[in-house]
Amino acid sequence: MAVIVQKYGGTSVADVARIQNVARRVKAASDAGDQVAVVVSAMSGVTDQLVKWVREIAPHYDATEYDTVVATGEQVTVGLLALALQELGLKARSYLGWQVPVRTDAAHGKARIEGIDGGAIKALMASGVTPVIAGFQGIGPDGRVTTLGRGGSDTSAVALAAALNADRCDIYTDVDGVYTADPRIVAKARKLAKITYEEMLEMASQGAKVLQTRSVELGMKHRVPVQVLSSFNDLPGTLVVDEDVIVEQELVSGIAYNRDEAKITLIGVPDRPGIAASVFGPLADANVNVDMIVQNVSHDGRLTDMTFTVARPDLQRTMKTLDQAKNMLKFERILSDSNVAKISVIGVGMRSHAGVANTMFKALAEKGINIQVISTSEIKISVLIAEEYTELAVRALHSAYGLDND
Amino acid sequence: MAVIVQKYGGTSVADVARIQNVARRVKAASDAGDQVAVVVSAMSGVTDQLVKWVREIAPHYDATEYDTVVATGEQVTVGLLALALQELGLKARSYLGWQVPVRTDAAHGKARIEGIDGGAIKALMASGVTPVIAGFQGIGPDGRVTTLGRGGSDTSAVALAAALNADRCDIYTDVDGVYTADPRIVAKARKLAKITYEEMLEMASQGAKVLQTRSVELGMKHRVPVQVLSSFNDLPGTLVVDEDVIVEQELVSGIAYNRDEAKITLIGVPDRPGIAASVFGPLADANVNVDMIVQNVSHDGRLTDMTFTVARPDLQRTMKTLDQAKNMLKFERILSDSNVAKISVIGVGMRSHAGVANTMFKALAEKGINIQVISTSEIKISVLIAEEYTELAVRALHSAYGLDND
Repeated sequence: MAVIVQKYGGTSVADVARIQNVARRVKAASDAGDQVAVVVSAMSGVTDQLVKWVREIAPHYDATEYDTVVATGEQVTVGLLALALQELGLKARSYLGWQVPVRTDAAHGKARIEGIDGGAIKALMASGVTPVIAGFQGIGPDGRVTTLGRGGSDTSAVALAAALNADRCDIYTDVDGVYTADPRIVAKARKLAKITYEEMLEMASQGAKVLQTRSVELGMKHRVPVQVLSSFNDLPGTLVVDEDVIVEQELVSGIAYNRDEAKITLIGVPDRPGIAASVFGPLADANVNVDMIVQNVSHDGRLTDMTFTVARPDLQRTMKTLDQAKNMLKFERILSDSNVAKISVIGVGMRSHAGVANTMFKALAEKGINIQVISTSEIKISVLIAEEYTELAVRALHSAYGLDND
Repeated sequence: MAVIVQKYGGTSVADVARIQNVARRVKAASDAGDQVAVVVSAMSGVTDQLVKWVREIAPHYDATEYDTVVATGEQVTVGLLALALQELGLKARSYLGWQVPVRTDAAHGKARIEGIDGGAIKALMASGVTPVIAGFQGIGPDGRVTTLGRGGSDTSAVALAAALNADRCDIYTDVDGVYTADPRIVAKARKLAKITYEEMLEMASQGAKVLQTRSVELGMKHRVPVQVLSSFNDLPGTLVVDEDVIVEQELVSGIAYNRDEAKITLIGVPDRPGIAASVFGPLADANVNVDMIVQNVSHDGRLTDMTFTVARPDLQRTMKTLDQAKNMLKFERILSDSNVAKISVIGVGMRSHAGVANTMFKALAEKGINIQVISTSEIKISVLIAEEYTELAVRALHSAYGLDND
């Protein structure tokens, strides 16, 4: 008998019929002998409506009141799902964040879970009751309702699974797993049976937004196996696990892309110690997250060029910040380009294999795609290319690394 | 500087613009030097939608989960109104039932307030903050969300006013006060400046549903002056107060009617001690509320007829219950009639004046209206008539007691 946390996203509970569908899934698992705790999001569209009302009334809203309003979405679904489970003959009861309690820090609107007291819920499950827990919400040190930020229900589910020492956390969503590449771009993409936490983190941060990053980090920290699967079919999903659980590790697990980047180049920057800090310090202060950074050796030992990328919505703020710091930085010119995409090859297998990067460069060269910037980590190689080549590059790499489905 | 509780109903907070309108009203009172606590209902229509979802999933729903779902309506409005007040420059914060806390009994779906700890809110108001409290909800002894039943926000507001020892509780609604009769029927109806708690109770239970009965009882018990007024204009409303506050008491304050009654007559009931108990005992067990009861002296000392009224939705249940008890009750026949209306003349002044009833009987007789049943209390005379005469009777009585507006 396994202890399982099941999490259902907004599209899985979008209306009464779908909530009843979720209830049947929970009952099936329960009938099969598992102890199931369920975490749910708001019905899809509901959170957007609530946020819209908040913004109409207060464009620069008090995040505490925002949380009070927005947390109602999940409160509705836990009650409705508990009722649907009861209709199927299960004993079920709902829990709000403050009732569990799910303790968070005070960062309203984007709170972090500090601890979950799983004791009461564990005892309840052992007595044959199915708890239905509101995702996305908790209670802050001020005794008020907090929310975890968009996608936070994944994090709620994994944190609960850790608190319950669950055997697995199943995240039901509108995709049925993690693919070797975006199936909308690569027709031959394959669903992965397993993927490591580290790879999943790189996939997520590269734009393959299947799981919230924080939930993967939590799963990794507490070694909770996390399964991504669909609530609309009965196919097996993708299991996100520790590296040592995967017996036959592929060299490369997937190809990711991100069109949400903008490239900035500072031309004629003095080539002296501390210049990087003086560029990126002001950006950090302006809350701009810098991604790839490239600085070449200068030809003459005097001036160099520096290129880096930021999220596209941050571009304007970045340019303004650098312009204000121009006197101090003493660069000659500044260039920006939103017309770029980042393509990444991800796989823990590349740690122990040489030549992985070269396969990438060769495959892109064969298609005539120019590489603007390169950045590597232990399990990832990313390049920046012109955005129009995105699909071509992803498909070429998918073939080059032997990921194509036959 | 007065301490005022303002309560706004669903139509007053139906959308963003109306919530902003409410915020301006609160600010005006605050600017005028009053300390204001605000109690709000759900945006109109929201509660109905939530109830609909609950019923679709579980026709015989668990009231605990119902409460969890339905209480979200008020949670949304408190957050939005707190934000709207902040936008106007007020310090404001929302309170949910469990945060105040508003302690109730465990009767989910129709809970009664057992106590409100007003300390924190009082301190907050003294420090210049405007608290916005979710009406209709509380926390039960089980630590779960409770709701007070439909119209419960009025009760929340008056109970809070009592807990805060407030100078007045203003109930903003979609009518602008209490009238001598329903203005839809009597064009010459006048708005009452003042009315006693007792009269208001009789008016409310007679179908003039301006205030929830329980809220009037609470106001009477704690001597909280309750004002009924409109949030859509600036006219003075009707003040519900203790009898001794009203200097010039009218003989009759108003004419009420109720079309929600059904009449039942048991013919040939044995005229022996205990027969009433044996009729009404089973009805009480079946949760049927009996209103008017008439039993005449029997002609022969052996058999008598017994007439009483119940709420129309309870008629079927009543007939079934009596039918099942027929062997024990030994009545000859049973008759029922839904085609009746109860007309009431209400006024604390009639306590000390004779002839009030006779004016009623004479006025009805002049219009050729037959009286089927009569029932009286200290401050009320009610008669049952054929439903089709309702408007005629109300207008005739309004004139007969000199209530017509000139």
